[in-house]
Amino acid sequence: METKLKELKMQLLEIDDLESAAALLSWDQNTYMPPGGAPARGRQMATLQRLAHEKSTDPALGKLLDDLQPYAESLPPDSNDACLIRVARRDYERAVRVPPSFVAQFSEHTSASFQVWKAARPENDFSQVQPYLEKTVDLSRQLADFFPGYEHIADPLIDFADYGMKASTIRAIFADLREQLVPLVQAITDQPPADDSCLRQTFPAADQLAFGLQVIHRFGYDLTRGRQDQAPHPFTTEFSVGDVRITTRVRENNLGDALFSTMHEAGHAMYEQGVNPELDGTPLAQGTSSGVHESQSRLWENLVGRSRGFWRFFYPQLQDQFPDQLKHVDLDTFYRAINKVERSLIRTDADEVTYNLHVLLRFDLELRLLEGQLAVRDLPEVWRERFQADLGIAPPDDQDGVLQDVHWYAGTVGGMFQGYTLGNILSAQFFDAALHTHPEIPAEIEQGQFDTLHGWMRENIYRHGRKYTASELIERVTGGPLDIEPYVRYLQEKYGELYHL
Amino acid sequence: METKLKELKMQLLEIDDLESAAALLSWDQNTYMPPGGAPARGRQMATLQRLAHEKSTDPALGKLLDDLQPYAESLPPDSNDACLIRVARRDYERAVRVPPSFVAQFSEHTSASFQVWKAARPENDFSQVQPYLEKTVDLSRQLADFFPGYEHIADPLIDFADYGMKASTIRAIFADLREQLVPLVQAITDQPPADDSCLRQTFPAADQLAFGLQVIHRFGYDLTRGRQDQAPHPFTTEFSVGDVRITTRVRENNLGDALFSTMHEAGHAMYEQGVNPELDGTPLAQGTSSGVHESQSRLWENLVGRSRGFWRFFYPQLQDQFPDQLKHVDLDTFYRAINKVERSLIRTDADEVTYNLHVLLRFDLELRLLEGQLAVRDLPEVWRERFQADLGIAPPDDQDGVLQDVHWYAGTVGGMFQGYTLGNILSAQFFDAALHTHPEIPAEIEQGQFDTLHGWMRENIYRHGRKYTASELIERVTGGPLDIEPYVRYLQEKYGELYHL
Repeated sequence: METKLKELKMQLLEIDDLESAAALLSWDQNTYMPPGGAPARGRQMATLQRLAHEKSTDPALGKLLDDLQPYAESLPPDSNDACLIRVARRDYERAVRVPPSFVAQFSEHTSASFQVWKAARPENDFSQVQPYLEKTVDLSRQLADFFPGYEHIADPLIDFADYGMKASTIRAIFADLREQLVPLVQAITDQPPADDSCLRQTFPAADQLAFGLQVIHRFGYDLTRGRQDQAPHPFTTEFSVGDVRITTRVRENNLGDALFSTMHEAGHAMYEQGVNPELDGTPLAQGTSSGVHESQSRLWENLVGRSRGFWRFFYPQLQDQFPDQLKHVDLDTFYRAINKVERSLIRTDADEVTYNLHVLLRFDLELRLLEGQLAVRDLPEVWRERFQADLGIAPPDDQDGVLQDVHWYAGTVGGMFQGYTLGNILSAQFFDAALHTHPEIPAEIEQGQFDTLHGWMRENIYRHGRKYTASELIERVTGGPLDIEPYVRYLQEKYGELYHL
Repeated sequence: METKLKELKMQLLEIDDLESAAALLSWDQNTYMPPGGAPARGRQMATLQRLAHEKSTDPALGKLLDDLQPYAESLPPDSNDACLIRVARRDYERAVRVPPSFVAQFSEHTSASFQVWKAARPENDFSQVQPYLEKTVDLSRQLADFFPGYEHIADPLIDFADYGMKASTIRAIFADLREQLVPLVQAITDQPPADDSCLRQTFPAADQLAFGLQVIHRFGYDLTRGRQDQAPHPFTTEFSVGDVRITTRVRENNLGDALFSTMHEAGHAMYEQGVNPELDGTPLAQGTSSGVHESQSRLWENLVGRSRGFWRFFYPQLQDQFPDQLKHVDLDTFYRAINKVERSLIRTDADEVTYNLHVLLRFDLELRLLEGQLAVRDLPEVWRERFQADLGIAPPDDQDGVLQDVHWYAGTVGGMFQGYTLGNILSAQFFDAALHTHPEIPAEIEQGQFDTLHGWMRENIYRHGRKYTASELIERVTGGPLDIEPYVRYLQEKYGELYHL
């Protein structure tokens, strides 16, 4: 068994090496690659991914996993090896269910769809993408059908990102959340709007980057095992537990953009950096779900980075970095500016309170498209109605409505959006749990100290990687299931105080 | 046959994709990778190289090449497809001759040897590397013996870098060259030394990089298909014909270092950028030999970049970039400084005239080690004697003597050094040929114009990639075989004038 386990690890390591190489090619494409490199680069990444997929579905791997099953059952279920065999088997069984011809067809279709969407969005022309999106819905249903026995047709698609979560559970949770959020947004937007003009001056890019880097360094992002580069869209990528990088986009006329996205990506990156090094090179060395991953980015970005205590420490430093722009702006004005709530059209620019309404809308529409309850041709109109109902405004066009996010036009319909809001909910639940054990954390944050908070996250969440599913992890960490109460309480308290509700 | 040819190209493309990915991982390791990434990176590169090697020696590839042989013979021998099949077959036959177990053994040995050398050189302790180097000689002989029928045991090793060149030919050419160089060095060093103190002031790194980049951009290095980054050792790397990058090392107390190495690497890079795009992704899309490759780096670095005409145009700009350092240094003083000849210990720092004596020494000692005429334990002493005889000084220690270059301690003994001097010889031969067709080139260089020279190189050398062997290419371009006369004449004229000989 020792030999077979070693053999399994070697095969998984080879797959991991190919995937990590593909990730580096993608990082380079987004950071430093000269334009002339593009045509070959697309092909090179596809080759590495194809080889990784071939090896992930190799029957010899399935045989090894079968042979190792009795051994896995003889081990303590929480042991690294038992978890490795369990998760590798889950990945293998998922990968072999989808025929390679379908994978190729789907990938070809999404490439074509993405190209059409890139042209259609600036032209504000939904009719161009409509036939592609219809086919995407159809293919997404076919993909789900390779995993029979589901309760809801979205469940297998949700599983890809948030294993074990079900449409019915999420739908119920999101409905509860919506009931709380819609009146909160209403109450806030009945008040005079916050003034965020202080963020819209000119802030040199290099200074913004330097400040952000200094903040995340204090958070505990390890720069000997990571780095920050500029890219058109911010992202986090991991080549090993010793090399987890973030990218940032800087807008010189918007101080918040780079700053909060740097903290956001650092949250993702600290999760990956915090995985137990013994798991490196295995399928366990990743975040356990998109929701738990997002809980970390949102925790560091919002619960920490948009808190008053945090800025009590950092705002004088920010003023020193940008004296001309900020010396006459007091802390309270700045704090209100970075927490301004408004009815807006674009999800990625939305504030903490309205953000989830954008996500909930998409999640519900995804389910209805998959259920056949909503036709693609009716989607723009239904989007507008729901937007009006939830956010009190309606998009004037499709460009900033149904066409705004790339997700449905370059991936599946289903499973794409729930992680964002699950992450927000979990960020408050995990933060609460950390504070329960360490009530000194808020005071430490006011001193620019993050060791206790970071240490708790590493100990309770990061180091486990994918050893536990999201549900298992939530249960271990909070003693109960996913729960919106801490998150709703956090929003009500913070924004109640800010907007004198 | 169409189908089989397509199949061949697809198999070769997959190998190329893996090798290009490995090259990017290596580029990243040398430029941006944080230190924590090192352990996994070594393994990831090894995995990609192993997979590329497996696919390069796949019997199915051999079968395809066999099947295509009659078709290849029916094509015009200069056609892209005939050349592709011919070169792919040559590569395949070479790759399958060496058993995988030997490849693994050799690679393990060179890794260990490299680690020992890294410690032994600063400690000036040849005895540490001696047993490793003895084994390297032994393994190099074994490697050569996988290619029986050679005239000299170094020939198969030379073939890896300079296909078709023979030890006997090179030895005779190098002996002729040495006969010319030793008295030339003697005559020059009898004169008062040039004053190069103007190069040894402080020159800010960013300004050095900006100036160098501007120069190579004028040469014709295409920055939409390449880029320059800093690295501990300068190198050129290619991921496709659309993405050929260089790296530069900057020393703030030495103006020549970054400047000439930037031009050097740009010469390599323009060669790779100039390959016919139709050959991209095939084994033909590379320089044809290490000698021809080096002819391009040395041509742009020395025949162009260290010429008086070049600096008539660029020196005023350099003075503008570094006014404090250079405004009182006249062109003639600067020109003498960058062409200072001296008896020195380190090959990579040597001037144009003495440089080849460093190479010739290594080449001759390589052959004698392989022939069994020289024992490794006697190498340091023999090195010193030969150095004294050729360069008129003796290294005071092994650190700056036999231990100075990494080549023998991380590769084969044999085939490692001849390319440097073949490149110097060819640089003058090719430059002569270009001037024969375009006598206006020197006048253009004085105007900072390089289109004619670059265009001639692209048309006659670059675009062919590996379609022709080095010997075929030299014959096509110059109408004759490799010939030292133009190079010796170039050195005698240039340095005769400089040193009033």
